[in-house]
Amino acid sequence: MEHRVELLAVGTELLLGNILNTNARDLSQLLSGLGLNVYHHTVVGDNPARLTQAVEIAKGRADILITTGGLGPTCDDLTKKVVAGAFGLPLEFHPECEQSIRDYFAKSGRTMTANNLQQAYLPRGCTVLENRWGTAPGCAFCVDGVHVVMLPGPPRECLPMFREEVTPYLAQLTQGVIHSRTLRIFGLGESGVEQLLRDKMNTLQNPTLAPYAKEGEVELRITAKAESVEEAKEMITPVEQEVRDILGDQVYGADVTSLEEVVVPMLAKQGLTLGTAESCTGGLIAKRVTDVPGASAVLQGGVVSYTNAVKHNVLGVSQEVLDTQGAVCEEVARQMAQGAMRVLGCDLAVSTTGVAGPDSDERGNPVGLVYVALATPDGCEAVELHLGGAAQRRDRVRTLAANHALDLVRKYCLKMNNEE
Amino acid sequence: MEHRVELLAVGTELLLGNILNTNARDLSQLLSGLGLNVYHHTVVGDNPARLTQAVEIAKGRADILITTGGLGPTCDDLTKKVVAGAFGLPLEFHPECEQSIRDYFAKSGRTMTANNLQQAYLPRGCTVLENRWGTAPGCAFCVDGVHVVMLPGPPRECLPMFREEVTPYLAQLTQGVIHSRTLRIFGLGESGVEQLLRDKMNTLQNPTLAPYAKEGEVELRITAKAESVEEAKEMITPVEQEVRDILGDQVYGADVTSLEEVVVPMLAKQGLTLGTAESCTGGLIAKRVTDVPGASAVLQGGVVSYTNAVKHNVLGVSQEVLDTQGAVCEEVARQMAQGAMRVLGCDLAVSTTGVAGPDSDERGNPVGLVYVALATPDGCEAVELHLGGAAQRRDRVRTLAANHALDLVRKYCLKMNNEE
Repeated sequence: MEHRVELLAVGTELLLGNILNTNARDLSQLLSGLGLNVYHHTVVGDNPARLTQAVEIAKGRADILITTGGLGPTCDDLTKKVVAGAFGLPLEFHPECEQSIRDYFAKSGRTMTANNLQQAYLPRGCTVLENRWGTAPGCAFCVDGVHVVMLPGPPRECLPMFREEVTPYLAQLTQGVIHSRTLRIFGLGESGVEQLLRDKMNTLQNPTLAPYAKEGEVELRITAKAESVEEAKEMITPVEQEVRDILGDQVYGADVTSLEEVVVPMLAKQGLTLGTAESCTGGLIAKRVTDVPGASAVLQGGVVSYTNAVKHNVLGVSQEVLDTQGAVCEEVARQMAQGAMRVLGCDLAVSTTGVAGPDSDERGNPVGLVYVALATPDGCEAVELHLGGAAQRRDRVRTLAANHALDLVRKYCLKMNNEE
Repeated sequence: MEHRVELLAVGTELLLGNILNTNARDLSQLLSGLGLNVYHHTVVGDNPARLTQAVEIAKGRADILITTGGLGPTCDDLTKKVVAGAFGLPLEFHPECEQSIRDYFAKSGRTMTANNLQQAYLPRGCTVLENRWGTAPGCAFCVDGVHVVMLPGPPRECLPMFREEVTPYLAQLTQGVIHSRTLRIFGLGESGVEQLLRDKMNTLQNPTLAPYAKEGEVELRITAKAESVEEAKEMITPVEQEVRDILGDQVYGADVTSLEEVVVPMLAKQGLTLGTAESCTGGLIAKRVTDVPGASAVLQGGVVSYTNAVKHNVLGVSQEVLDTQGAVCEEVARQMAQGAMRVLGCDLAVSTTGVAGPDSDERGNPVGLVYVALATPDGCEAVELHLGGAAQRRDRVRTLAANHALDLVRKYCLKMNNEE
């Protein structure tokens, strides 16, 4: 049987635009992974009449209704009462919940107020979904063929509860799974990827192949429907291999979220240390590398040389070059990288110098002109980038420049690995 | 007349969880600002039957329906046809749109394909909403008392179109405005703010006062309903003053989004330059400061001293202190800041050293133990922070540490300013 899922979020703060409905995205991803089709997202405020109406509509078009929000102790929080009522169920006190709530407060050292115990009132006959990440328990029940699951609104409670408490409940309802593997591509635009893979994308049915443009990168998702995750993975692997044969090392990883997540373990495997010398990226490359746990095995350090004085005094960039060619040129990028290698005592060093915007620099260099260099024991390579264009944003220029710098490091590691 | 707005997003990628519905949040904020009440958000996929049903439901409960997504040239994009059809309107070719689309392609140097011209088909008699940020025009019409606005899905097109094209259209429908001013607070938790302002929050009706917890900070929103923005601002100002009298300089700004956005102009005003020496934050502080346009007038540079070797060799931290006390101690934080001041030639320098996680360091220092120091011409101050706790995330420890460092700089600037 084909299930139809509706996600119903309750909260006036969503309708005021105070917060994003990240639960809708994250639960949709998790539900797709279980082979369940989400057909509707709905958001209503803390209003009994409109919530009742939304539940009535959902009953008519979905057979799995998942609500988020409105389980807390304050009077705004009416989801349980209204939703249970719409299915003809009264709320009852669940003594086992009282104990969990008392335990949670004791453990976290906070003081429990009387209204926290209101959270122990749940629909009669429901399955209680334990909340080990907060105080409000969730619940699940099935009436007239509609499965209803209620979860708290804060994502740090909602998502782990879904993974640990709801997934086993829903897994009984579904046959087969949908499983995806996502390849990340750097150095080719979405249209370039499409051109190379068009035939494949058009002919493949299961698995399917779909590209998505990301900030300066492309994601290519291979999705298979199968009886089990293992079977889906077996179906995906040969397609992945074909894609890699076509795109080569522009595919930088599978099921990773960023270049740095790939670069850090590559460097660690090669036993190479890294340093950075950043002007226009202003620390972004070092920040991204140190976002990755375990970066300390790889990153020696970095210099943010935002002024010419720091470029010269700390990194040893030639004052003459700075005076004659300005800070934004290939030679400065090279000397910054070489200087960082020397000063930081690292095996490899990347550098950036360029115009992030919003304005051109005093020499008239346009927004988006960036030089990136990589110094290695084998010499120093540099790249000139044009990341500008109509109304290009400062943060985007910086992100793309950092991507190119990290990709230079990745390509060097690949070369070293192949030569071994 | 009280208007009821529904936002209807069309796109299977939203239901698969591939993307977040940021338009719903951003349009809701803008609509609130116009004094319009958003009562429903709905998302459906690229499916004519379910889209038709969603439009029928919206017609029954909203008098302003704003759709996003599904205006593009591919066959998935069916919003115009289905929505116009639900209101009894056929699509017609709009020659003026053809010219805009041709102009857009000519300007951006891209090649137009035949199906791009499909975007010039719009509901009969509609107001065309020009899209200067992409190719798909939007449209607006009113049938049977329901105002319908259709916007493209990509936020970089949808939001500027809303601001420039839709706002004047909707402003005719509404009387009065809702205007907010948001104060940002650092150094007090949400409950602390609530405790100090409880009486005020409970008694104020218009403007209202509401706190929101953000990553390590609190936002306090003062919202007034009035005839005009000017009148609303006049109502907000005395409330802001009362709040500032109670919370003092823990209020760091109004209608700003981050500490760095406040710190950069404060430093520029004082004519002070800044440098950074970062261990656990790994470049995050320099990155955040250089996120702010104009940072080059303030930031000299930074050193990311991730290893002890860089702390000693580049910043001159005593090897003996590193050997005996380890890298995570107050003395190292102080010497890092003082070293950065010397090496970078800046007036002020901030430093961080600590354990970002996910694991304790080799000396057993717990995740979240961070020392932050600020070196100034008047001496050096240091703070010990405990940012850990149950399952604290690495990125959160780093963000909070950077916040504390930036706040030290802010407090110093405030002191300098008061002494002038």
